[in-house]
Order: sequence, then structure tokens, then C-alpha cells
Amino acid sequence: MAGGIVTLLTDFGLSDHYVGVLKGVILRFNPSAQIVDLTHQVEPFDVLGASFTLAAAHSYFPPGTVHAVVVDPGVGGDRRPILAEAGGWLFLAPDNGVLEWIYRRRPARVRALQPDRFALQPISNTFQGRDIFAPAAGLLSGGESPERLGDPIEDFARLDLPCPRQVAPGRWQGEVLKVDRFGNLITNFTAAELPARFWLTVGQARVEKLHAAYSSAPPGAIFAIAGSSGFIEISVKEASAAAAAGAGPGAPVAVQFLGDG
Amino acid sequence: MAGGIVTLLTDFGLSDHYVGVLKGVILRFNPSAQIVDLTHQVEPFDVLGASFTLAAAHSYFPPGTVHAVVVDPGVGGDRRPILAEAGGWLFLAPDNGVLEWIYRRRPARVRALQPDRFALQPISNTFQGRDIFAPAAGLLSGGESPERLGDPIEDFARLDLPCPRQVAPGRWQGEVLKVDRFGNLITNFTAAELPARFWLTVGQARVEKLHAAYSSAPPGAIFAIAGSSGFIEISVKEASAAAAAGAGPGAPVAVQFLGDG
Amino acid sequence: MAGGIVTLLTDFGLSDHYVGVLKGVILRFNPSAQIVDLTHQVEPFDVLGASFTLAAAHSYFPPGTVHAVVVDPGVGGDRRPILAEAGGWLFLAPDNGVLEWIYRRRPARVRALQPDRFALQPISNTFQGRDIFAPAAGLLSGGESPERLGDPIEDFARLDLPCPRQVAPGRWQGEVLKVDRFGNLITNFTAAELPARFWLTVGQARVEKLHAAYSSAPPGAIFAIAGSSGFIEISVKEASAAAAAGAGPGAPVAVQFLGDG
Repeated sequence: MAGGIVTLLTDFGLSDHYVGVLKGVILRFNPSAQIVDLTHQVEPFDVLGASFTLAAAHSYFPPGTVHAVVVDPGVGGDRRPILAEAGGWLFLAPDNGVLEWIYRRRPARVRALQPDRFALQPISNTFQGRDIFAPAAGLLSGGESPERLGDPIEDFARLDLPCPRQVAPGRWQGEVLKVDRFGNLITNFTAAELPARFWLTVGQARVEKLHAAYSSAPPGAIFAIAGSSGFIEISVKEASAAAAAGAGPGAPVAVQFLGDG
Repeated sequence: MAGGIVTLLTDFGLSDHYVGVLKGVILRFNPSAQIVDLTHQVEPFDVLGASFTLAAAHSYFPPGTVHAVVVDPGVGGDRRPILAEAGGWLFLAPDNGVLEWIYRRRPARVRALQPDRFALQPISNTFQGRDIFAPAAGLLSGGESPERLGDPIEDFARLDLPCPRQVAPGRWQGEVLKVDRFGNLITNFTAAELPARFWLTVGQARVEKLHAAYSSAPPGAIFAIAGSSGFIEISVKEASAAAAAGAGPGAPVAVQFLGDG
Repeated sequence: MAGGIVTLLTDFGLSDHYVGVLKGVILRFNPSAQIVDLTHQVEPFDVLGASFTLAAAHSYFPPGTVHAVVVDPGVGGDRRPILAEAGGWLFLAPDNGVLEWIYRRRPARVRALQPDRFALQPISNTFQGRDIFAPAAGLLSGGESPERLGDPIEDFARLDLPCPRQVAPGRWQGEVLKVDRFGNLITNFTAAELPARFWLTVGQARVEKLHAAYSSAPPGAIFAIAGSSGFIEISVKEASAAAAAGAGPGAPVAVQFLGDG
């Protein structure tokens, strides 16, 4: 287990010393840890955005991987640091709901970390990523058992995820979860939720066509596609659907289901 | 060979989950892979830009390194995923010409990957980096032989590289390949192509002087220098030549060769 | 010692091939090196900014870590490449004062690197990170002894650090060292230098309150806090103090010490 994998998901950006400090501490506790950045570009304090990135990436890593999430508006307050075991992976995070997608998809055993047992002392009020989560990630990736680091809890925090809701017969309303680097609008409709025939409206765009691949779409056309993260995305081939639709994160996505006719 | 090195060169950016997913899959196939980011900031779909970065960086890595390039406007279409062996390194890429600089400099053995033999199933139409290239990179870095992953081809795609051309006696026209972070204008003239005495024009700047080091140039002066990537660069000491010349990627670079007098 | 840790701190950014080249060369000299990015987003040629990031991050890494700093306005000139040993860590850097915070905090043994003994040949005038520092980092992380790479010097360059100074009885003037991603204004007052009762002025903001944690501050209020890097920071809970105060790097910070009354 030495050489265990630790992923990091933070809102620290890449210009400051914070990410380097996290990695230094992890390596102090496990010098052979394999550290992988999921991203450090989560918008500051965007718990919902971090939860999406974690949901989309975590399952591609080998079992035993330690996923550490440090997006923590309540640092230094009374929210607890937690450790969850689900699906063979380990998750370290503040107890602010950032693990919600994990909880919904798999049974999870959640523990409240007991920092007195392992953390860097003194524990600061401003950088618990360094003082609590990095030591825990180092220890767990080196083979330490979860029960040594924390005690089971049931009352962990949950997050209200934006899910599509029916607003009229055959009419659903969802939203844009995220815009990716290519300008794809990642909606909160799953591929299974979209019928074969539909009208979809987002921003100024009307979408009627589902394509199986970007390459099969005509240039300039806006279309829907089952994206790689499991959600329906609105795309333009080799261009930005966000720009074409004039829509961004949180924008409403209205879908009218059509008959099979 | 376990612990083999994999480099990644993509246009995925660093804000989304895509790079993390690639790394997770590589580590599934080879948990001790050494993964190095060349860059993920290639402009979306910029095959030419990616080809330059690969050309400038690949040869500094140890023999056996697997260089994986995922800049792939045609994902999901009929372009093939390929594997090239050249100069002791392995290259994974879509067959869109992104390996052109490699082909020009060294004999290459090119194979069409046969994803049925090794890829994540089902293979998506939207993220073949994850489904095809990452598994191949993991396997190759762990010691799998290229012939197990693909079959030889000869008709791989070539790219038309922008090379300087003679437009009149003693007069050549090239272009700016790239502007780097410091504002250096990296031209497509190689150091050997520039004579001892010349007039060079790019944007609003006239350049007559070749310096051997940034530090030997006077402050504020614009000058030519044999850059670290093997091309002539136009530079200003501790300032941006791109700003000084008002020129960017693709800008014409005119060179008048002067006599030895 | 194989598997030794190398950290990189540069102003190369993440869009060019330079960081990848550094890593390739390090791995040529030590294929099992653990390479960690501190940051590559130092402002071009900002020696002072790099010195702060190094000061804030270096001590969290295990003893034996090689910290390589390549922020080098004088590349190719006559400034020397140096190697410092301090506090159990090794530091590679141009001799331009970027190690000043290290020198001030700990006894350091400094050597002038002798590139003829180990560097990539020919040594360029434009990319000594590649030709000198990366080989040295690879060798040192693999267990090579410092005395093999360089000879002791005493006349290494020092940097004039911005420290608070007393401008009147009970009145001190410091400055903002850095603005981090969250908009925190990191000042050059250490936690020990700020009295229990004070008035602090930065930009348009007046600060009178020291909080022990972000979470204990009321929304919207601007306050001082002992930051994780050891300096007093000016913060707004879950918002940007830089925006609230209208202040940035280098802005004056005036502190009036008040009595205990």
C-alpha cells in the first residue's frame, strides 16, 4: 500500500503556496505517495462545483485511492472533518456536503476525524487542509486504517443537489451544472432522462437533435450529446456552446418531451 | 519498466475533471506510472500548437517514455488512434498529424491502435483519451509491447508545417510559431537558417542584432536569439517582445539576408 | 534516497514546454524522483515573490527534499548558479537573493555550482534551468553529495526584504507582500508584531479587529487574522479583502499601536 494514490481537489488555485504545502505534508507522512491533482481551480468556496468534479472523476482511480477534497468555507468553525469509505475508495473532506454525489450512488461509511490522534500540532484555524487533511491522506495512503483516524457518525451533512423537476405534463426543468473548457454546457439531465424526441431550450438556443459523437454534427449546429461524465451536454462541434447559447452555470434548461410519432 | 514515465499533452485545461480522469485510468493500468504534465493549456483543437510543444519537449525525457497527446478535433469520427515508436520514445496520439515534427526528425514505426484488444469498454465517442489513450499509456509504461496494442500502418496523416520560404533573392518569409509566457516570439527559422548579418521584420519591429544571451542585450532593445527550442526567437530583455512588436502567433517574419561586408 | 523529492518553483507558467523539459531532464538523472510543483505562476522575473512562496512552503517537506527555484532575470549573465544547504533541505537557485528568507531563518552553507562537472552540454545562455538546475536536482535527489556539485562561497547575493519600520511612536508602516487567490492581503507584519489593540489602515479599509478564525467573523467585515504562512493577513469571510480595501501587492499597511486600556 506504500505508494498509495492521493488525489487533491481544492479551490486553492495554482499561484499560491497552498497546494505545495499540502503535498509537502502528505509526503512527510508517506514519502512514496502518488499525488494526483484533480483540479485546484474550483471557484473559491464552490462546494457544489467541487462535488460535481469529484463525482465525475473519482471512480476512474484504482480501489484504495484516497480522494482529499479541501473546499471549505467553514474552516475553523464547528463543521467536522470527515472520512468516508465508499465503493473501495476513501474520501477526506470537510463535512459540508461536498461528498453528496458519493452518498447518493453508493453506501458510505462515514467517520468524524479525530485530529488529536494524528494532526499537525497546533491545529490552525485557517489551514486545516495542511494540519488535518494532508496528514490523514498521507497516513491512509500509507496503509493506516480508517478506524484509527476517526469514529463513525450518522449525522453527516447532506447537500441539496439541483435535479431536474417536472413542471408540467411532459415538461421538465433542469439547469446547467457546469461549462467546461470547450464551452460544452453540462446539464443535470442524465442520458437516460432524455427521450428520443425532444425540444430543449437553454439561453437563446433551441436544441432538437441528439448526436452520438461531436464528429457527426454539422459545423455550427448546436446539439445534445451524452457526455463523458454521464450527463447530457449541449455542444457545438469545435466551438463553444456556451457562447452560442449565451448561457452559463446555473442557467435553466427546459425540456419538452415529444411523442414517438 | 514498472514505474515507467507517461507524459500528457492535451487541450483539456486544468479546471475540469478530464485530466484527473486520464490519470486515474493510467494508474489503473499501471499503479506505479510516473505521470508528467507537458501542458494541458494547448488552445482547444490546436493540433499545430500541440505538435510544436511535443517537438520542443519530448527528447529531454529518458528513452522508453510514453508521450500521450490528446488534442483531437475529430474524436468519435473515423480518424484512427495511433502509436508511434521513434528515437527510443513511444508516442500515442490521434492520427491527425500532431506527430509531424517527430516524423520529420526521425524514422518512425507507426501502428494503428486496436482498441478492442485493451480499451475501456464501451468505448465512448466523446472521450477517447480516457477510453483508449490512457489504457494504452498505462499498459505501455508498464512494459506491454507495442505490437500487442496495434498493427503497422504506412498511410498515417501528415501535417503541413509552416516553414520559411524564399520570396526573392536573399529574402525569406517565415512566421511566428508561438508566443511564450515571457512574450518571446518563437519564429520558425532555425538558428542555422539565420545569417550573421540580416534585417528581420516582425509586426512593427525591425531587428538587426543577434545576441547570445538575454543578459547581454541593452534594456528595451528588441533582438534575435537562438532560443532553447532550437528556433530563432525575437526577445526584449525582461520584457515582452510580443507587446513591443505588436505581433502574435502566425505573424509574418520577413528576413533580408545581408552580405558579409 | 532514490525516490528523493524535488520541488519546482518557477515563473515559466503552465502553457509552454519549459516545465515539461525541466521534469524530463530531472527524470533522466533520477528516474524515480518525486517531482512536486510549488508553483510556476510566479510573475515573470519576480524574485521577491518567489522568495516569499519558497519561505512559506519549503519547511513542510521532508528533510532531504531538493527545492529548485528558477526565477532568473539574469540568465546567461555572470550571476552564479548556487546550491544551499539549510535546515536539512537543499536549495538550488540563481544567486540573485531568492533564498533570502532561508538565509535569515537558518544557518546556510552555500556553494557555487560547478556546471562543468555535471551539466548538460553545451550549456545554453537561455535555459539554464534545463542545463544546470535540472541535472543538479536529479543528481541530488538521487543521493549525490553537494560537495561534488559545487564549492563553498561566502559572498552570495542578499536581498533587501520589505520589513515593517517604525515611523513615529507607536506607529509602524509595512506593506502587502502578496494577494492570494481568495483575496487575502498577506502583510509583512508577523503575528508577534501586532499588539492586542490596534488600528490598521490598508487601501480604503480601516481594520481594528483580530479574529482567530475566518468563521468567527461576521459576513462582510474586514478583519486581521494570523495567516497560515506566519504573517498577519487582512481578510473578509468568503470574499476578497483586496477588492474590499482596493489594495494589492506593495500597498502600504499602516498600524497604530493602542494602549492596553
